[in-house]
Amino acid sequence: MADLTGPPAPLERAGIIAVGSELLTPLKSDTNSLRITDALNQLGIEVVAKAIAGDDRRELAAVVRSMLDRVDLLVLCGGLGPTDDDVTREVVAEVLDRPLAEDGDVAAAVAKRFADRGLEMPRINLRQALVPAGAVVLPNPKGTAPGLWLDLGDRAVVLLPGPPRELIPMLQRVAEEHLAARTGGRTLVRRIVGITGRTESHTDEALGPLYARWASADVRISATILAALGQIELHLSARGPDAGALNGALDRAASDVQAVLGADVFSVDGRGLEAVVGDLLVGRGWWIAVAESCTGGLVAERLTRVPGSSRYLGHGIVAYSNAAKTALLGVPPALIESKGAVSEDVARAMALGVRERSGAEVGVGVTGIAGPGGGTTAKPVGTVAVAVVAGPILRVRTLRLMGEREHVRYQASQAALDVVRRVLQG
Amino acid sequence: MADLTGPPAPLERAGIIAVGSELLTPLKSDTNSLRITDALNQLGIEVVAKAIAGDDRRELAAVVRSMLDRVDLLVLCGGLGPTDDDVTREVVAEVLDRPLAEDGDVAAAVAKRFADRGLEMPRINLRQALVPAGAVVLPNPKGTAPGLWLDLGDRAVVLLPGPPRELIPMLQRVAEEHLAARTGGRTLVRRIVGITGRTESHTDEALGPLYARWASADVRISATILAALGQIELHLSARGPDAGALNGALDRAASDVQAVLGADVFSVDGRGLEAVVGDLLVGRGWWIAVAESCTGGLVAERLTRVPGSSRYLGHGIVAYSNAAKTALLGVPPALIESKGAVSEDVARAMALGVRERSGAEVGVGVTGIAGPGGGTTAKPVGTVAVAVVAGPILRVRTLRLMGEREHVRYQASQAALDVVRRVLQG
Repeated sequence: MADLTGPPAPLERAGIIAVGSELLTPLKSDTNSLRITDALNQLGIEVVAKAIAGDDRRELAAVVRSMLDRVDLLVLCGGLGPTDDDVTREVVAEVLDRPLAEDGDVAAAVAKRFADRGLEMPRINLRQALVPAGAVVLPNPKGTAPGLWLDLGDRAVVLLPGPPRELIPMLQRVAEEHLAARTGGRTLVRRIVGITGRTESHTDEALGPLYARWASADVRISATILAALGQIELHLSARGPDAGALNGALDRAASDVQAVLGADVFSVDGRGLEAVVGDLLVGRGWWIAVAESCTGGLVAERLTRVPGSSRYLGHGIVAYSNAAKTALLGVPPALIESKGAVSEDVARAMALGVRERSGAEVGVGVTGIAGPGGGTTAKPVGTVAVAVVAGPILRVRTLRLMGEREHVRYQASQAALDVVRRVLQG
Repeated sequence: MADLTGPPAPLERAGIIAVGSELLTPLKSDTNSLRITDALNQLGIEVVAKAIAGDDRRELAAVVRSMLDRVDLLVLCGGLGPTDDDVTREVVAEVLDRPLAEDGDVAAAVAKRFADRGLEMPRINLRQALVPAGAVVLPNPKGTAPGLWLDLGDRAVVLLPGPPRELIPMLQRVAEEHLAARTGGRTLVRRIVGITGRTESHTDEALGPLYARWASADVRISATILAALGQIELHLSARGPDAGALNGALDRAASDVQAVLGADVFSVDGRGLEAVVGDLLVGRGWWIAVAESCTGGLVAERLTRVPGSSRYLGHGIVAYSNAAKTALLGVPPALIESKGAVSEDVARAMALGVRERSGAEVGVGVTGIAGPGGGTTAKPVGTVAVAVVAGPILRVRTLRLMGEREHVRYQASQAALDVVRRVLQG
């Protein structure tokens, strides 16, 4: 239909609806939409809204209607199964006023899937062969539920199955066979700048002049600031026809940020602090060894998340008890006695101890009170001492971290890695 | 206002909107709504819809309007920060037609938070003191953004900050001080049964007869099986006026499951494997020590996530390199040479080594190939050897785990903890 009236309208603003009652419980979150967003972004289509709906027909119909008012591409995933709970097909057909009819090819394909496994097809599976008028069937080689593509001229609606192993290959085909021709030749490129040592609002204030410049530049750059645990993230994105030009503009924007924030920028390409530290170690050909008390292994665990970390991390010590601090790291009991296990002196002795015993160039010591118990007036929960020794440099910091046990631990690991980064960056 | 017209209407159907442009990228998913759902479910309030919106005012306003047509409780989280991107407060005020005015108390509290840290308050933070007419301010002891409670009589709207450490305590106060009186006396109780050593479909098959019995019992119990990484979870829930009766019914249901699945049930109260192992160690008065290669500290990190874990974990060794396995654990180089670093013999030597050197009763050794590199035909990526020595018992297992590096590492930690659990349970 659209073919008769000129080139199809480009699709620019997408909405995603994940369907499934389990996604409305405290236990399961939607992750399919991340995959879908990634595929759409690569085509320059921005996701402007997401929703989660259960198997309530009225509710889902309301969400579909509301989204169709606001987006030109609507992607639904899930709810295409054979049971009464699976309402996506019927609700979309009703909202778009496209009557459902059984598609012989789909019915045969579903029956064949059962026959191939020596099973009889339950009658309810015929529901999966119902196709709204005018829809293109998207074959599902990995399951019984076919997807559907509905071209509405100025808008389009896609129905995809929920299980990721069925969704992902179908999504790729939809992108190639239906969406690629509808993007108006644009692409969307993102970049994450990682920042430590500043609050969200101080970062925002410092970057204010850049925002103004980016907003009026040839390649317009959008920026969002996000406060994550132990770091600030600046998310940059640009959209346009020329991926090279977009990447060039984002590179320059990232350099602008570095010029303003200096060493507080730890990454301009989305790498986490553990990967940045790893690359710095590889660059020097140095080894790192870690001695942890309150973080209980988290610093070593984060460093070894990075593939190839065996090039620079060989030894880690979790010295949770005072006895372990002495036995494994040589921290003198008298020092623990006089200064306390959570003290800069003990952190320093841990860093020096693990470095000496491992033969590494860099030693890290972390000791603190993660809570909920163990705090005192002088050393409340969240008090953490971090020491880093690298070559001739020794740096020790005491932190007062806020939050629950797991947050204190994560921020302590973040602080330790950040001190290592700053020392290695000179 | 609602007080004058009789008891407030019970709130039954909730919608949640998570606000933040980053939640519309491929990189970040909303998890706050899980916490919020849990808190609402505990009050018998069901979540019927969720949505994600960015910092586009028109888009957010459309979502708020659409949800307010369909739910009687609307919870928004995020977008309460000080910057231009933070639009939740203003959009809600506009949609509800409640003008914003600066609240002196809030302004003073925000200024004090900065002063306490020796910082000057950026002027933009005053935006956080804007309050819609008729709103109750929810103090934020953990951050600068206060929350807001708006009673609309038959409906209510809550605005909560996005950072979890600010959200969670505020959510609890809202539940106690505002929502608890509005639930019509119902409650929804959930129970999670944790299972290892079975697939999802085998668990489902074994439990089939129980489902039928629960569905027709006096207190109807809903059950959902979820396959999580390294464990199967059976989620049970029941709703009704009498929390005691609901809990009794769920207790009996959990016992039914244990009778069918035996030692494959590790927890009937939602405790993770690391907490179950911790409780078993406390019960015996035993210490555990961990020696890790491929998990890089994850087993120790998981054990020490549990508050009070210093009662049973003192020592952990991350022996990522072969040199560290020898130096820190006494694994003979000839053994590594002849059997390979990833072998049951080396895992055993690691477990015995860390136990002997720590004086603990239980020793754990984990060595494997987490990938993506390092696999061979004989020992592909995902090959992991786990050894546990506890008193006179020595148990060694070789696993072939599937998935990405992080999944292999997590499942390896899970397997190690599960072997410890089964040994300690005798």
